[in-house]
Amino acid sequence: MTTPRRLESYVCGRWTRGAKEGQSLLDASTGDAIALIDSTGIDFAATLAHGRDVAGPKLRAMSFHDRAAMLKALGLALMGMKEEFYAESLKTGATRSDGWVDIEGGIGTMLTFASKGRRELPNTRVLTDGDVEPLSKDASFSAQHILTPLQGVAVHINAFNFPIWGMLEKIAPTLLAGVPCVVKPASQTAYLTELMVRRIIETGILPEGALQLICGSVGDLLDHVTGQDAVTFTGSAWTGRKLKSHPAVVANSVRFTMEADSLNAAILGPDAVSGTPEFDLFVKEVAREMTAKAGQKCTAIRRVIAPREQVQALVAALRERLEKTPVGMPGDEGTRMGPLASFDQRDEVRDRIRDLQADAEIVAGNPDDVRLTSGDATRGAFLNPVLLYAERPLAATAIHDVEAFGPVSTVMPYDDLDQAITLAQMGKGSLVSSVFTDDPKVAEDVVLGVAPFHGRVLIGNRASARTSTGHGSPLAPLVHGGPGRAGGGEEMGGIRGVKHYMQRTAVQGTPRLLSAVTGRWIEGAPANQGVHPFRKSLAELRIGDQLVTATRTITREDVEHFAHFTGDTFYAHMDEVAAKANPFFDDRVAHGYLIASFAAGLFVEPNPGPVLANYGVDNMRFLAPVYFGDTLQVRLTCKEINPRANADHGEVRWDCQVTNQKSEVVAQYDVLTMVAKTWPAAVQAAE
Amino acid sequence: MTTPRRLESYVCGRWTRGAKEGQSLLDASTGDAIALIDSTGIDFAATLAHGRDVAGPKLRAMSFHDRAAMLKALGLALMGMKEEFYAESLKTGATRSDGWVDIEGGIGTMLTFASKGRRELPNTRVLTDGDVEPLSKDASFSAQHILTPLQGVAVHINAFNFPIWGMLEKIAPTLLAGVPCVVKPASQTAYLTELMVRRIIETGILPEGALQLICGSVGDLLDHVTGQDAVTFTGSAWTGRKLKSHPAVVANSVRFTMEADSLNAAILGPDAVSGTPEFDLFVKEVAREMTAKAGQKCTAIRRVIAPREQVQALVAALRERLEKTPVGMPGDEGTRMGPLASFDQRDEVRDRIRDLQADAEIVAGNPDDVRLTSGDATRGAFLNPVLLYAERPLAATAIHDVEAFGPVSTVMPYDDLDQAITLAQMGKGSLVSSVFTDDPKVAEDVVLGVAPFHGRVLIGNRASARTSTGHGSPLAPLVHGGPGRAGGGEEMGGIRGVKHYMQRTAVQGTPRLLSAVTGRWIEGAPANQGVHPFRKSLAELRIGDQLVTATRTITREDVEHFAHFTGDTFYAHMDEVAAKANPFFDDRVAHGYLIASFAAGLFVEPNPGPVLANYGVDNMRFLAPVYFGDTLQVRLTCKEINPRANADHGEVRWDCQVTNQKSEVVAQYDVLTMVAKTWPAAVQAAE
Repeated sequence: MTTPRRLESYVCGRWTRGAKEGQSLLDASTGDAIALIDSTGIDFAATLAHGRDVAGPKLRAMSFHDRAAMLKALGLALMGMKEEFYAESLKTGATRSDGWVDIEGGIGTMLTFASKGRRELPNTRVLTDGDVEPLSKDASFSAQHILTPLQGVAVHINAFNFPIWGMLEKIAPTLLAGVPCVVKPASQTAYLTELMVRRIIETGILPEGALQLICGSVGDLLDHVTGQDAVTFTGSAWTGRKLKSHPAVVANSVRFTMEADSLNAAILGPDAVSGTPEFDLFVKEVAREMTAKAGQKCTAIRRVIAPREQVQALVAALRERLEKTPVGMPGDEGTRMGPLASFDQRDEVRDRIRDLQADAEIVAGNPDDVRLTSGDATRGAFLNPVLLYAERPLAATAIHDVEAFGPVSTVMPYDDLDQAITLAQMGKGSLVSSVFTDDPKVAEDVVLGVAPFHGRVLIGNRASARTSTGHGSPLAPLVHGGPGRAGGGEEMGGIRGVKHYMQRTAVQGTPRLLSAVTGRWIEGAPANQGVHPFRKSLAELRIGDQLVTATRTITREDVEHFAHFTGDTFYAHMDEVAAKANPFFDDRVAHGYLIASFAAGLFVEPNPGPVLANYGVDNMRFLAPVYFGDTLQVRLTCKEINPRANADHGEVRWDCQVTNQKSEVVAQYDVLTMVAKTWPAAVQAAE
Repeated sequence: MTTPRRLESYVCGRWTRGAKEGQSLLDASTGDAIALIDSTGIDFAATLAHGRDVAGPKLRAMSFHDRAAMLKALGLALMGMKEEFYAESLKTGATRSDGWVDIEGGIGTMLTFASKGRRELPNTRVLTDGDVEPLSKDASFSAQHILTPLQGVAVHINAFNFPIWGMLEKIAPTLLAGVPCVVKPASQTAYLTELMVRRIIETGILPEGALQLICGSVGDLLDHVTGQDAVTFTGSAWTGRKLKSHPAVVANSVRFTMEADSLNAAILGPDAVSGTPEFDLFVKEVAREMTAKAGQKCTAIRRVIAPREQVQALVAALRERLEKTPVGMPGDEGTRMGPLASFDQRDEVRDRIRDLQADAEIVAGNPDDVRLTSGDATRGAFLNPVLLYAERPLAATAIHDVEAFGPVSTVMPYDDLDQAITLAQMGKGSLVSSVFTDDPKVAEDVVLGVAPFHGRVLIGNRASARTSTGHGSPLAPLVHGGPGRAGGGEEMGGIRGVKHYMQRTAVQGTPRLLSAVTGRWIEGAPANQGVHPFRKSLAELRIGDQLVTATRTITREDVEHFAHFTGDTFYAHMDEVAAKANPFFDDRVAHGYLIASFAAGLFVEPNPGPVLANYGVDNMRFLAPVYFGDTLQVRLTCKEINPRANADHGEVRWDCQVTNQKSEVVAQYDVLTMVAKTWPAAVQAAE
């Protein structure tokens, strides 16, 4: 290590050094100065304005699929450079497997959002939310909720422990929503974040201003946030409260999402006695959560809740495992646990252990006696795992209130399952808890008992031993966050996380104008008849294009024939007396599947054309019985058009309404088709 | 009016007077003292604990349908007593039609939630949220989000202007979620809220503790809220900020929902020139919003944005309408507008008009010259409507920042549509804005331009003139709330509003245990084969009951026969060369509807039995082509059971998976059936 690198911020389109030399950042294992950090002199109001004015319109002009493709390209590019990040990550004290969670876990999260964006969102710029709400009987006035991107920026203030994942898990849903980001990493490990942002900017994949970085203090930045901005914070509850109460945040009702460390619990089920696979899995999981990232994870297990009669065996098993854990230099292959992030962190953890000792005694490890397999305890912030035991946890407070943000956990006994649930709840809101059991009743009782206090609950058992992602891993498709002490935030959760950066608006109006706003045909909006809409490619097709078919009368012979042909000889189709005894029918009725089949026979266009396939049906409801002699007619209307970015076709959703001779709707559903983007007119004409 | 009534609070199961005599409340029109309000001496910590401990468990033991039925019974009972509320409502200054919004609008909102709860929620106590997320390739580890009721209470702090609606629109979704309420009405009109709570308690329909009422100050109540409680506030931004920053609210991450008054806009489209129906509708709507409830509505139109060339005609039309509005005693039949709520309110409005005059001039009305058709301006807080005009609105600040909470609005001109959108956005976040236009492009541009700044946007035009519920009416199915200045909250929105009082939790585990938690069969969970599940009534049927059918080979003859029988002779079924040219098929394929029809033939049980009808199909996807000679088999698994409260049957959802001879899934969907609650075993045996 030679001269420490001066970190730069990326704001207003350029890399900028702070005016001062700044604070020195040290390698967690060696104490070597590796970087200097300072943001003095940055114009934070201009930074926010740059994001809003330069990147906002560009991002909003892209569709969800455009943005998903952007994230995919970025994720793949970053994955290709991962070794550079692993090398830098060592300085934070992270072992290779700690780094995997941060680096590949982070990039994987971005790729998951890319994939969900393409699969679960339409290729549009406005999202509809929920069903159309009819507000009048004559379909002249309806409503539809829509989601549009906020027109501000998202300010992401992140924690030191995951300098990469912490950034990527937040910017992925934000960018997918169409909102620019300003990232402020915790200073301690900002050099790793800065390296990745440098590589991101170099790819040129993001529009300028979509991602800005502040290395150092955010100064007066929060003074300039508006109601269109969002602020997220991950870190200590103390700082979180300060930011959340910031006058501009409060005055402008700025969306504020907070993830604070919490006193997450793991519960050993009463069935999971010593000798069962669940007991062994529990021991492994607690030890893993205590030592991974040296316990510096907001999801780590802080409270180990076990049946009183299992405590002795549990403590013995954990002690053995923890004492065998090689603590040393994070780059050494034999090392299982590296140092804490800094001496300050280690001092802090030792202080908190002393607080916990008010309620609990140390039963494994010694915070003041560091034993290493490599490295130097006077230069690196090393600490061996420490396990405590609290004999009377229901009467205790510190063990449910004090978090030692390191390799520290407290075992506490319970006498019955209600007590275990109460103990978990005494954490006053956590990011995650887990229960290890193979008993469905225990799983049900514990999960439902603790769910209101948690953002995530994991059930561990033998069947998922190989595939479980574990207690401590937030996953892109699942919500991450928790109520109460955990900060009350909710991040990720798949597409839910994207909506955190969008505004939900109820739009009311006459269907014709509502359709114009949402780009989706709705009942009551005008329709265009003429050429069969199945003859139109995506280039010609418009929402509202409609076919009203010829009619077909369903006969007794049709129904009996269909019954014998398909084998569906349900009595309501076949037996008049039995059918009349059925509470829903006055007589023998046609099969629902026969109605849908005849409907297709009425609306299909048999010759080759732009409609390539019917790949599904949604929300099919048989609303009125069809009796022999009833005459069916179909109204098929183009409802939604969703061209695929990288294909010659797209999805088209058709509103399909089948009526009888009295104009009663007998069946209503959506028909889903694949339609070609173009189709030669000459071919169409010839056919 | 004789002695003023001493209002009481309903806490901890009894009606309680404050220790002091309290503040005097006056009739808005006559100045007569009608009530005294005080809450001194109430134990607020005990009040919260009473809700949590006494009512919480009782409400959570009920299903959504039980709670919906409770709300329906309560709503119907209240509707039967409405005249008593109308009589009391006069004292607030509300005319009959003002009272209708508050009283029947409020009760109607409760009934809508009751109806939505029964129709849109399952008859369970736990909600699933979103799809199952498979987390492993072998289906041994998956996740499902669930929603469970918070285990605290919801504290609803309400505004003076809708003493009934303001309570009911909040307690309806809260109670439906299973969470007890503490209501604190604004003192000014608390006598009306108190009267209704008295009637509610008397019905005995709610479990004790589900609804408590505080008449007077909430004292130290907020010091005792926890992360399981929620606080909502409707009223002034100033008070809202104070409550939101309350140390206990911040420290415990208490859910805080705020609806503040906002500077809602109404935009006249460029097409809606004088003489068009939209121009006339606009004039009517602006005048109505200014005068309804004497303009004391958080959704009222404060800013009137119109094409510059229409301003003169618009101001003239509005002036004429406003000057003709009879202002007087709210109980008089000829009165169109009653007094403001109090002299304090009138003073406040007059002060704010003076603030607005920094940017605008008065063009109709005179705040200092009250002209009445009945009543006494020295005793009642009367004020005639005041219209202002701001010539340079883009350069102005007060008109976009200052709210006169009374019959006051400001007209501002725009030169092009972008300016109109900018002006609307300058409100910095509003509950609602509206645009009056018959032009789809104008509707699209304005709605999408202002949506990120609004919780609701209404499009007014000739087609919805008769049926539109209007700019100022929040509706139970639609979200009510807005970003930024409007407080950043979101209320109602149908079932969305129920979820505000529930915790979302991602539950991960092996499908067997996940199913036990959610009460819903999921892929990978064990199944029970044996007797055909269609022979089981709801009394015997269990999730996971499964049928694996015999097989059926689809032949060319089947497909051709089906094609000619139904009329669906799409080329991919009929023409080998054309089918092979289709990008999705390698050869002629079977119809999707034929696959579903044959599947039904395989799984149906023909004789009368507990399965009464197939009423629909959900999420049908044809996942792989079925070619001639392929052999189909169906696996049908009972997935969800939803007994109806007031019927002999319930809904059962079946997972239907159709596979081919290579065990590839060719079709996947949910089959929806009605199943009897009981079915005589003797009848089954005989058949």
